[in-house]
Amino acid sequence: MQHMDERVGAGAGQSTSPPRRTIGVVGGTGPLGRGLARRLAAAGHTVRIGSRDRARAEQTAASLGADVQGLSNSEVCAAEIVIVAVPWSAHDATIDGLRVELEGRVVVDCVNPLGFDERGPYPLHVEAGSAAQQAQQLLPNSTVVGAFHHVSSELLLGDDPLEGDVLVVGDDRDAAGQVIELVDSVEGLRGVFAGRLRNAGQVEALTANLIAINRRYKIQSGLRVTGLGTPSGH
Amino acid sequence: MQHMDERVGAGAGQSTSPPRRTIGVVGGTGPLGRGLARRLAAAGHTVRIGSRDRARAEQTAASLGADVQGLSNSEVCAAEIVIVAVPWSAHDATIDGLRVELEGRVVVDCVNPLGFDERGPYPLHVEAGSAAQQAQQLLPNSTVVGAFHHVSSELLLGDDPLEGDVLVVGDDRDAAGQVIELVDSVEGLRGVFAGRLRNAGQVEALTANLIAINRRYKIQSGLRVTGLGTPSGH
Repeated sequence: MQHMDERVGAGAGQSTSPPRRTIGVVGGTGPLGRGLARRLAAAGHTVRIGSRDRARAEQTAASLGADVQGLSNSEVCAAEIVIVAVPWSAHDATIDGLRVELEGRVVVDCVNPLGFDERGPYPLHVEAGSAAQQAQQLLPNSTVVGAFHHVSSELLLGDDPLEGDVLVVGDDRDAAGQVIELVDSVEGLRGVFAGRLRNAGQVEALTANLIAINRRYKIQSGLRVTGLGTPSGH
Repeated sequence: MQHMDERVGAGAGQSTSPPRRTIGVVGGTGPLGRGLARRLAAAGHTVRIGSRDRARAEQTAASLGADVQGLSNSEVCAAEIVIVAVPWSAHDATIDGLRVELEGRVVVDCVNPLGFDERGPYPLHVEAGSAAQQAQQLLPNSTVVGAFHHVSSELLLGDDPLEGDVLVVGDDRDAAGQVIELVDSVEGLRGVFAGRLRNAGQVEALTANLIAINRRYKIQSGLRVTGLGTPSGH
């Protein structure tokens, strides 16, 4: 296991040739899952996308190219790092159903519990405090890290360069470090350690504000943390 | 009253010579209040800082120079825009005590309901959903806008140029526009409309993440929204 460098999230990632990982994406046929799979494969990782419907995962994987493999959700949990990119409505049941398969894994939760009504998006109340904390409660033998909440699926699936920081929250320093390294390996993204899992709720909910910004200014917004210096190597 | 330009928060503020305002700062002797007063006075606004202890406000105002005036909290509420910069523990009582004085005003709430323990900062549960919503409930005849949650008092009080976006949340389009214009008038800051008041809670709570970032990377962090283009005129 690698020890986490204090500055690994501050733009130092790309220059040190981060390790290529095997990454599983549960819910990999949705827009965020597809987008992350595409960019992670482009970064040189071995990426497997999962779906409840294996045939659908295979089709989606073929459409992504770049050696992305399509499997069942259960099968992609064999990867070193497993990203959960399901809709909030499926979060609880999907994770609960993969409890055994996810044992010992670093699980990256990027799910945003949001509601929408005629006045726009708003955060839903989550009993556990956040989707990430709910995942950790359901997976006592996995290590949950929150990340990728604010990256736009549209941008991930497009051809423009990415730009932005990914807030990474987690209680396990080594697991958070692995995820920051993974983020840093994607061109244009930088991972920033942003606190413990109990501070995941507002990171998830802030997506409602970014959606409001998108609607007002007709953009695809993201976040950058100021004060860390200019990202290098991207 | 000015009508809000769709792009006023996207870096267009400085070039149009925004109006000079009279600004009151309730709790103006604390670090955030002092810092905001100093930068707003430098931007050409007439700034009055308030305290429960008028003499203390006068002393602090004298130390800030730049024609900042020190008054009682009650007296500064006569300003066009009133910023509430009290600690969370004093939020409820202070605002409730100024209910009459704040009638008809645009009230800018920048209070972050955070707790701290041995593991660092974390968001406190607020029955109303957020400090800003609590303020609006207490002030039915005022217009509450949330802003300035993420600017570092230390940077505001220092001499380095500021850098960052201020997320502005509010239900009243005109009031939010006035606050965005106020933010834009401060060199280095840009106001970005970030949704309705019901989306204030996560903006306030995100300050816990910024504090965690500050501790990990030994910086004074802030936020920048990507996708809006480069701020101009700053």
